Amino acid sequence: MGDEKIAVARRGGFKVEQSDMKRLGKLKAEIRAAYDREPLDLLVRDVQLVNVYSAEIVATNIGIKNGRVVTISSSLPKHTPTVVSDGEHNYAIPGLIDAHVHIETTLLTPPALAEVIVPRGTTTMLIDPMEISNVAGLDGLLVFINGIEDLPYRIFIEVSSRVPTAPGLETTGGALGVEETERLLDLEAAVSLGELDPAKIDTLSDEHLQKIIAAQRRGKIANGHAIGLTGAALQAYATAGLNDDHECVTFDELEERLALGMGVMVREGSSERNVDALISGIVEHGADTRNLMFCTDDKHTADIRSEGHINYNVNRAIELGLDPIEAIRMATLNTAQHFHIEHLLGSISPGRYADFILASSIENIEPERVFVNGELVAEKGQLVVTPPRVAYPDKLRHTVRLHHQLIDEDFMIPASGESIRARVIDLIPGQIVNNAIEATLAVKGGIVIADVEHDVLPMFCVERYGKNGNIGRGLIHGFGLKHGAIAGSVSHDHHNIVVVGVDRRDMRVAVDALVEAQGGFVVVSDGAVQAILPLPLCGLMSEEETEVVDRNLAEVRSAAHVLGCLLDAPFMALSFVSLPTVPTLGLTDRGLIDVLNHKIVPLSLD
Amino acid sequence: MGDEKIAVARRGGFKVEQSDMKRLGKLKAEIRAAYDREPLDLLVRDVQLVNVYSAEIVATNIGIKNGRVVTISSSLPKHTPTVVSDGEHNYAIPGLIDAHVHIETTLLTPPALAEVIVPRGTTTMLIDPMEISNVAGLDGLLVFINGIEDLPYRIFIEVSSRVPTAPGLETTGGALGVEETERLLDLEAAVSLGELDPAKIDTLSDEHLQKIIAAQRRGKIANGHAIGLTGAALQAYATAGLNDDHECVTFDELEERLALGMGVMVREGSSERNVDALISGIVEHGADTRNLMFCTDDKHTADIRSEGHINYNVNRAIELGLDPIEAIRMATLNTAQHFHIEHLLGSISPGRYADFILASSIENIEPERVFVNGELVAEKGQLVVTPPRVAYPDKLRHTVRLHHQLIDEDFMIPASGESIRARVIDLIPGQIVNNAIEATLAVKGGIVIADVEHDVLPMFCVERYGKNGNIGRGLIHGFGLKHGAIAGSVSHDHHNIVVVGVDRRDMRVAVDALVEAQGGFVVVSDGAVQAILPLPLCGLMSEEETEVVDRNLAEVRSAAHVLGCLLDAPFMALSFVSLPTVPTLGLTDRGLIDVLNHKIVPLSLD
Repeated sequence: MGDEKIAVARRGGFKVEQSDMKRLGKLKAEIRAAYDREPLDLLVRDVQLVNVYSAEIVATNIGIKNGRVVTISSSLPKHTPTVVSDGEHNYAIPGLIDAHVHIETTLLTPPALAEVIVPRGTTTMLIDPMEISNVAGLDGLLVFINGIEDLPYRIFIEVSSRVPTAPGLETTGGALGVEETERLLDLEAAVSLGELDPAKIDTLSDEHLQKIIAAQRRGKIANGHAIGLTGAALQAYATAGLNDDHECVTFDELEERLALGMGVMVREGSSERNVDALISGIVEHGADTRNLMFCTDDKHTADIRSEGHINYNVNRAIELGLDPIEAIRMATLNTAQHFHIEHLLGSISPGRYADFILASSIENIEPERVFVNGELVAEKGQLVVTPPRVAYPDKLRHTVRLHHQLIDEDFMIPASGESIRARVIDLIPGQIVNNAIEATLAVKGGIVIADVEHDVLPMFCVERYGKNGNIGRGLIHGFGLKHGAIAGSVSHDHHNIVVVGVDRRDMRVAVDALVEAQGGFVVVSDGAVQAILPLPLCGLMSEEETEVVDRNLAEVRSAAHVLGCLLDAPFMALSFVSLPTVPTLGLTDRGLIDVLNHKIVPLSLD
Repeated sequence: MGDEKIAVARRGGFKVEQSDMKRLGKLKAEIRAAYDREPLDLLVRDVQLVNVYSAEIVATNIGIKNGRVVTISSSLPKHTPTVVSDGEHNYAIPGLIDAHVHIETTLLTPPALAEVIVPRGTTTMLIDPMEISNVAGLDGLLVFINGIEDLPYRIFIEVSSRVPTAPGLETTGGALGVEETERLLDLEAAVSLGELDPAKIDTLSDEHLQKIIAAQRRGKIANGHAIGLTGAALQAYATAGLNDDHECVTFDELEERLALGMGVMVREGSSERNVDALISGIVEHGADTRNLMFCTDDKHTADIRSEGHINYNVNRAIELGLDPIEAIRMATLNTAQHFHIEHLLGSISPGRYADFILASSIENIEPERVFVNGELVAEKGQLVVTPPRVAYPDKLRHTVRLHHQLIDEDFMIPASGESIRARVIDLIPGQIVNNAIEATLAVKGGIVIADVEHDVLPMFCVERYGKNGNIGRGLIHGFGLKHGAIAGSVSHDHHNIVVVGVDRRDMRVAVDALVEAQGGFVVVSDGAVQAILPLPLCGLMSEEETEVVDRNLAEVRSAAHVLGCLLDAPFMALSFVSLPTVPTLGLTDRGLIDVLNHKIVPLSLD
């Protein structure tokens, strides 16, 4: 074995949990403790252990050394453990795993997120950091994940496969080509190639197929995103090497995927809710659950707080009639097996991390206590440790830059003649897809006039990486603003600044306010900021605690409603209407995108 | 992606199936064929496909491109396939996998072995090349596996963890330290660290724990060899990172291993036969079979021919009452999942290699046809392709070298006085363990006299790598020779020359004959070779076809019986009595080994 520097370098420069030599020393202590040749660090006595391998519940004790489970035994060791904790006859359940999540959706940093998810029993998140990657690229991502090993939960990386999502149709801050993807896949924390858009298979994209091959060469899997795929298209997708899908919404889709050897992640997020349909189908028709997992994909902190996180998926599945141990397996062992990390987690077994929940029920899991790495991290719904705050570097905290100073007149849509028949994006409340409609608007002095009465408003997408000063111009129906403007720097997946408004000065002020705050959500009227949620980390995330973020988010929403906005979640709507990959239309800094035809189209239909 | 040279270098110099760029081109064709945009290479029509994911049997057709399955569909493609083959309504079963096998036991080269195993439906072998590694080391092993991608079956490597098995107690030709092991683990064909002796965990061997860590760092598993382990010792073994066991002989052991998250390979070899006990237990008591696999470990070609290979394990399990699809899963999907190669094989699914069996029954699998890589390789029990012969280099064909020429007098045991009370190895017929007994023998002229009447004969282990000229001297009971000598160069795991005999000249002639033949099994009497099976490849394997090897083996056995030998398999007994790790005594070139105390002991008890 080489020296430690070489070992770390081989792993791509990412600070791993431990060097080989340190790991060796610890492993020896773990083995000695397993043999009862030296004391355990912790013995959790008197638990009803949910064994996800044998599908049995066993009255026993859990012995822990160096953060690992080393003994499962009903007899006590002869060496007195350093600490003995009374399990109080609770069920001991392996820590829950979210199989696919975009952590940026929570608007929180990983340390701040801990208090939201860990008390609900989630101890491992498999994150696809697509948003950060689009903003900050390889180097930014490496900086972002530096320090994740100090969190009170585990993070593994699904290496984002679409950065940018729509090359040529948008300007992004970063890009992950094949080489960058290979570097990331070399990290031990990387467990897969992240969800891959079926269009890339349909069009036989060299870059994306090379990324799949790169993952396979490293013994890692490739995550799918098989939205709506069936028949030959689904088989072509599986042939390409995609190993799972989290976009499955019907039981028929689930059965088809499982039969092709694809895993299925049953998702329950804030808007995409698939547990009821899929689990009901399984309960009614039967299905082998070994390749089923749970995920949230995108779930807001308010929803996590009110209904739970992955424990919600498990609890609801049980309520729908799934066997509790099968439901728990879907959130633990199955995911660990699928991602080739079963030797580390997914069960309470010797050699695995001591990540587990103590709960009084396995039919409705509300953790009494949560242990991660053998340490008590949450109790009765509260985090009981303080995750170390990360001092993120300026590279991630100063990402919003305009190419040049904007003026009010930049927020006008030029046109000739007396009127214009134009394409208009029509929001569908609560959905990320939209309709393409048309409207005829007046033109005065060469400028398109907003039709506030019929809620057809101008919308702009301002390039914010200081690269080219692009401004995309469009029209949108559905926000309902009567005056003022709203703007945000979260705009999938390029995360330029999107702004909608009645008044061009308010729009300019809103964009300037976001540059000043280095990102966020803002509401402006009468030339002044009415409310703002700053998101200075990549323009995507706050560095505040969840309470502060929640309060600010409520304020900006409420301020938007004061301006007449009709939507429950106006900033979410704003963030998805910029997507060049979700039908029907999207607005990027390059212009209006006809999503189904993958091209930029003019605003005017004349 | 770098250029091809770099890609190959990254994989440790092992010639991989295809470079990334070639793979890309093929993958695109596979996807196009899956979409029915170009013709399939082969369509196997009208099969009853055993879907190991859904546990269903489906009437369908299998579409193949570039050796991969790309479609499973009951409807026909619009492009006419290059070849259409009638499946004749047979069951289509995924090719069977042997989860753990020492290929050297067959005495055949991998190409010659094809005709023995492939017609029985085995399409993948996970080999632990421990014997070759002990003889020829890293470089020899790399040469040996060069060309395995041209075989009509697949070989993956379980990187031998004990080379040498007993450092300090034996001389070997090669050694795999941590660095060599890391190089081998970097190969794509390497799926695990090979079976690790529990003593290495018990004694906290740095070297062996480092090898486990090295496998884990690469996302690969570590195979166990948990013979007799239970309770704390088994938990310490699991804590150390061992992920499975193939030495499990009782249902209680099986249950204990599964509950700890260890896989169990249910073995049926020539001498170790565990299917009946383990499967009967599963049928009677129930067990989740997802972490169960099948292996042979060591099975002789005659036994494979008479009863089958992995299909025997499957058929017998079904006969004992196991559900046929569960039994088939144990030989296919479960093994692929356990070794992280599920994306390549273990099922008949899009993206996987087109390795499958057509058979008229799934309750007693006797393949009508066997396909590997989409090519018909066997039909009605016969191989129908000719595996390319490998021209092994002299490095592997000239490995038997004496340090200096021996004389008859080297085959004497010196002693003082009139008699000696000595340790004697007592063979137990049909087992690899032996008893330690004692005997008193006459000493004449300073030489111990064999007691032919009571079958206590001298035995020698002659170092054969030309390194030091060591000769270990011992006494053995159980061969029953009345005159002459027998000798072999297969002697686990160091593979020095072992010889037992009544006459010192015959012993010297036998050793010289093996040097001349570069290894093998030989019978000598009256100063002349009576029969010989040459094994010139590493002194372990023949380069002949199986018929020739079988005939020669029958001849040496029969010649040994003529000399009075009582054993059914004298050369197998000879090959295991040299093992310094199987109780009670072993004889290496360093001397007599007290196995349980890991030390060299004197022959004399006085």
